[in-house]
Amino acid sequence: MSREEGSKLSRRAWITTTSGVIAAGLVKTQADAVRLVAQEAPTSGPAVDPTRVPGRIVSELGIRAPGEQPRRLLRGEALSSSSRTPLADLMGTITPSDLHFERHHAGIPDIGFDDHELLVHGMVERPTVFRMRDLERFPQVSRIQFLECSGNGGGVYSRDRMPTEITVQALDGLLSTSEWTGVPVATILREVGVRPGASWILAEGSDSAVMSRSVPLDKVMEDSLLAYGQNGERLRPEQGYPLRLFNPGYEGNTSVKWLRRIEVTDRPTHTRDETSKYTDPLGDGTVRQFSLVMDAKSVITFPSYPFVLPEPGWWEVRGLAWSGRGRITRVEVSADGGRSWVDAALQGPILPRSTVRFRHLFEWGGRDTILLSRATDETGYVQPTVQQLWDARGQRTSYHQNHQRAWKIARTGEVTFGLGELV
Amino acid sequence: MSREEGSKLSRRAWITTTSGVIAAGLVKTQADAVRLVAQEAPTSGPAVDPTRVPGRIVSELGIRAPGEQPRRLLRGEALSSSSRTPLADLMGTITPSDLHFERHHAGIPDIGFDDHELLVHGMVERPTVFRMRDLERFPQVSRIQFLECSGNGGGVYSRDRMPTEITVQALDGLLSTSEWTGVPVATILREVGVRPGASWILAEGSDSAVMSRSVPLDKVMEDSLLAYGQNGERLRPEQGYPLRLFNPGYEGNTSVKWLRRIEVTDRPTHTRDETSKYTDPLGDGTVRQFSLVMDAKSVITFPSYPFVLPEPGWWEVRGLAWSGRGRITRVEVSADGGRSWVDAALQGPILPRSTVRFRHLFEWGGRDTILLSRATDETGYVQPTVQQLWDARGQRTSYHQNHQRAWKIARTGEVTFGLGELV
Repeated sequence: MSREEGSKLSRRAWITTTSGVIAAGLVKTQADAVRLVAQEAPTSGPAVDPTRVPGRIVSELGIRAPGEQPRRLLRGEALSSSSRTPLADLMGTITPSDLHFERHHAGIPDIGFDDHELLVHGMVERPTVFRMRDLERFPQVSRIQFLECSGNGGGVYSRDRMPTEITVQALDGLLSTSEWTGVPVATILREVGVRPGASWILAEGSDSAVMSRSVPLDKVMEDSLLAYGQNGERLRPEQGYPLRLFNPGYEGNTSVKWLRRIEVTDRPTHTRDETSKYTDPLGDGTVRQFSLVMDAKSVITFPSYPFVLPEPGWWEVRGLAWSGRGRITRVEVSADGGRSWVDAALQGPILPRSTVRFRHLFEWGGRDTILLSRATDETGYVQPTVQQLWDARGQRTSYHQNHQRAWKIARTGEVTFGLGELV
Repeated sequence: MSREEGSKLSRRAWITTTSGVIAAGLVKTQADAVRLVAQEAPTSGPAVDPTRVPGRIVSELGIRAPGEQPRRLLRGEALSSSSRTPLADLMGTITPSDLHFERHHAGIPDIGFDDHELLVHGMVERPTVFRMRDLERFPQVSRIQFLECSGNGGGVYSRDRMPTEITVQALDGLLSTSEWTGVPVATILREVGVRPGASWILAEGSDSAVMSRSVPLDKVMEDSLLAYGQNGERLRPEQGYPLRLFNPGYEGNTSVKWLRRIEVTDRPTHTRDETSKYTDPLGDGTVRQFSLVMDAKSVITFPSYPFVLPEPGWWEVRGLAWSGRGRITRVEVSADGGRSWVDAALQGPILPRSTVRFRHLFEWGGRDTILLSRATDETGYVQPTVQQLWDARGQRTSYHQNHQRAWKIARTGEVTFGLGELV
């Protein structure tokens, strides 16, 4: 069984045709839209009455229900590869740590907590080596924020190749949200004393790619963390255990994992990783470099491929929105291919540089329908159409494809990616 | 090796005596309190350079680092038993789902998603059976909120038995925090139509105890959820898969797991579970029944038993505070047994009926010291002393022991539970 099929099977709640009892509850106005359900009992009950048999007792570590086995989607089997979060299987905003996306340039190094060291040097008064126990003693900060790979969504950008049978996981699964815990970079830089004239840092990982990125000093002084915790526990190995840089709202690759060195500099270092990659060629022959902030974006997670709507009626469109520039202020949904838009409800608290759940009840009439969503953030930035991105950046760029996504509902209820219908 | 010892070993970062390099960084004023760290490199480096060997590649499901294996603490091996969250091993507020505390009255039933049914009946216009696919179609809400067992903390309430060698996990580990997702009970009750005169509901589980509790109608209409999601994924079996009631801020037992029936009534049902248990005998011979709201409380998770402070100096006191009545507005810390108090810093966002992280830098002078914390919530309620609780409720009650906790730091740096020192 392929991974796609496994994913499809796990969504039995939606792709199975529902019985007549739901249809009986359908109504025609949005005010009554919650009246979707059965007015009579279904005909079959559970096979075994669970009140008649003793249950399993407590355990030191919980496991998922046998029927609930979400999985990351793997891309590539080389040292440089990725795995994607099953966004359509999730709800709320927190990504379970074992399902957080991965993107490694040379695999996951095996590092002991007590062995790890961070060197902070360069344009500083007191070059210092910190061990983990040193870092954990500084004031500890936690924040719920997203992390997104700058290449997320690249699969639906090319004018010449616009797939239709693509899941949200395959399309935008290089996005996850966690409660990150650590010490602010600003605290550590104040400790070592930054010299006048410094304006950037170089962050270097201790994987075998020695992944290295330049980050503006202003940014790391504002809100970056030396993160050692994720969703309550210590970082997972694939998230940089025992220490990573975490730059809220920036492209994920700058949040260098297995962080072993910070060098304070007066210019970007132009490492291999930021010249061979993470640079955007534009349509006019120039390139955009250090395009670090992730622009506002939204994705509809339901309905999306391969869900099948079993019948016309009221359905709740659900999805996620986020912006690297701050808070999401608005998400709109269109059910007519972008001609008209209505505001979706946003689930609070709306946190800066974090994902926000949006939802919108819409009545599907059983006709061909194209659903779209578009996000606006507190700077006024509006998620663009793909045509707007093509006009601004051309076809050759591989990063920051945050254009509006479309899902087409066919008369059969089958949902496919539908951007190709619009351009 | 006992579980306590295992827990102790996993905290090597703190109980190992640190080398001289940290001590060299100590300073004497709080303004400089972050200057705690090494000015020279340690003498030994990692055994293997991780940049010299290829790493492990991506996987469908992540696992924890070999050295990071937090576990729940089991109490009892019977069907009616509990397991406790390792609070001192955690940071931030989210509890990883596999470490969420458990309290079962007859073990964990094995229920299939498609087999489960919820009957809503009693004083309603349209008695209805809902399947999971029906419930998931209603508007979906997510909230980050705590769940606490009403018996949490009972181990340090008795005047005659006040243990000193007790961990935060053993003491207060019947507390966890998750992002819960589901449909508001209010939505479902509006769907079935509540009849005039109704004022309570009965919630019944489909475990083999058929655990049943009465909950005021006003409460469930205000903010209770029919929860099917936890921390992004479907509920875990031990949290009620596929459906539980979730009453924010109420005693955990009212958030009935494996929920199969809601009966709308005009009075509490006085089930076995709420008469034989969850009723508080008071000192004057009367009893308190339906004491449903969890009062404001705070616990210091660091330093706590069995941590050992390796040396005098600045240390960050860390802990959690929460209130069933709404938002925490203040947490104070005392380092002199309760004579003087200072405000701790609170980590935002401060959400209603959720846990809040607090932290406070304090300078330990190497003398016998008693640390306390006390929480205040938005209603003005202040976490009481144990003497205040004894005066109000006597010695025979087994629930709602939210009195201030104390930790004693000995001259050796050893930390023990210290409430006995104060009374």
